[in-house]
Amino acid sequence: MNRFVRKRPLILVVNDDGISAPGILALTRAMDDLGDVVVVAPMEQQSAIGHAITLHDRVLVQSYHVSDDVGHVRALGITGTPADCVKLALNTLLPREPDIVVSGINMGANTAINVIYSGTVSAATESSIRGVDSIAFSLCTKEVADFEPAAKYAKAITLKVLRSRLPRGIVLNVNIPAIPYENIRGVVVTRLAHSRWEECFVEKTDPENGTYYLYKGMFVNMDEGLDTDVNAIGEGYVSITPIQFDLTAHGCLGVLGTWRWTEHLG
Amino acid sequence: MNRFVRKRPLILVVNDDGISAPGILALTRAMDDLGDVVVVAPMEQQSAIGHAITLHDRVLVQSYHVSDDVGHVRALGITGTPADCVKLALNTLLPREPDIVVSGINMGANTAINVIYSGTVSAATESSIRGVDSIAFSLCTKEVADFEPAAKYAKAITLKVLRSRLPRGIVLNVNIPAIPYENIRGVVVTRLAHSRWEECFVEKTDPENGTYYLYKGMFVNMDEGLDTDVNAIGEGYVSITPIQFDLTAHGCLGVLGTWRWTEHLG
Repeated sequence: MNRFVRKRPLILVVNDDGISAPGILALTRAMDDLGDVVVVAPMEQQSAIGHAITLHDRVLVQSYHVSDDVGHVRALGITGTPADCVKLALNTLLPREPDIVVSGINMGANTAINVIYSGTVSAATESSIRGVDSIAFSLCTKEVADFEPAAKYAKAITLKVLRSRLPRGIVLNVNIPAIPYENIRGVVVTRLAHSRWEECFVEKTDPENGTYYLYKGMFVNMDEGLDTDVNAIGEGYVSITPIQFDLTAHGCLGVLGTWRWTEHLG
Repeated sequence: MNRFVRKRPLILVVNDDGISAPGILALTRAMDDLGDVVVVAPMEQQSAIGHAITLHDRVLVQSYHVSDDVGHVRALGITGTPADCVKLALNTLLPREPDIVVSGINMGANTAINVIYSGTVSAATESSIRGVDSIAFSLCTKEVADFEPAAKYAKAITLKVLRSRLPRGIVLNVNIPAIPYENIRGVVVTRLAHSRWEECFVEKTDPENGTYYLYKGMFVNMDEGLDTDVNAIGEGYVSITPIQFDLTAHGCLGVLGTWRWTEHLG
């Protein structure tokens, strides 16, 4: 398509399930067709770590052999969080700024309110803060799954972004339904569904710890909109949601600016 | 002001600096004047933990005595994150849904991009997701400081919010300059400044760990706007920024919806 020979893009692959997870291997293979790939991922599973970063501990780095067929890919495991992976890679480990950062493929949906807790998305966000385009990919199942359909879409979407570039300050959050490739109905751009987790903590007691609690949660979608990520996945579509790291509620600045904030100051 | 006797509000106090930090004591004292206070905070310092939650570990809970003058306040330390504190409190530890959740007073600014990494803000966000009004308070210094001026503003702003209620889905992120009370020039409503951390990881090697890295970062404000939180603090104002947990970049849905996402699908 492009008549000029150009440098192969440099692609950083990260995740939060850890460097040995099957999803990052599928993503690495898909990216290997598109450019020069470097993998920097946590040594251990880091789900629900959010945007935590390691300020005070040492971060260890170790070379990994991901798989024979992508044995030429440089792969580094680190002791930090997903956001640390991106920080350390962009500052120190990569030979130059990457053309794109891809995160995942996460095992489990990162739809709706889950993006707030997601290490997968936070790694992508960290990259976007640094001005490097980024995409988070998640496969909507917690079961052992076939990552190949998701990897095919990851490759097509990444190539599209490499060619078109994202608007500034925007991260793509991509969720792929866990269904056979031929059953996927296409790609839609969505908004995050309004939702929350209904938790019930299980109280336990033992002699050593006294009273303690174990988390149990159930995801509740409170949004009937047809334009949401949750609905798209349910209908068999790949969902792409643009998300932003500027958390200012710009639409509220006006009304809150009119409040008399100091009226109760003693 | 209000002629009717009404139930004292129930106020949950949380933080990320830990239950023994001076900032949470100052906030607890200030809230004790406004209603019935329960403190639920991490036993240990949890800065830069972001919105991490504890899904797979047990969360231990232990009673604390915060200080003699607020000895009547129920105070619980937990082994989890700031977001865990709110989840556990709202689900299990509190006798009823609180009227408001206040987080802090953090030692250190939570302005600009720092809100992404902040446990203080994430605790407040978690509350807002649950539909309970919430405010994060931070004092803009890392030095040993006088929390009294910040506590006075925290009390006035909390009372204002208890009386007026926040718009749905909005968290207030309040930063207070670390200057004498009489020098504070007032309160302004701001947006988060565009900014980022310039990191330089220090590479070290030792026989036990091999090569490892230590984080060093410098905050860089890239925003000359007069309406930002960073500028407000520099000018001696208390800064109030409304922030949202809906990360959808609604303004981008239109343009990304026109992209041909499947054109590179093999």
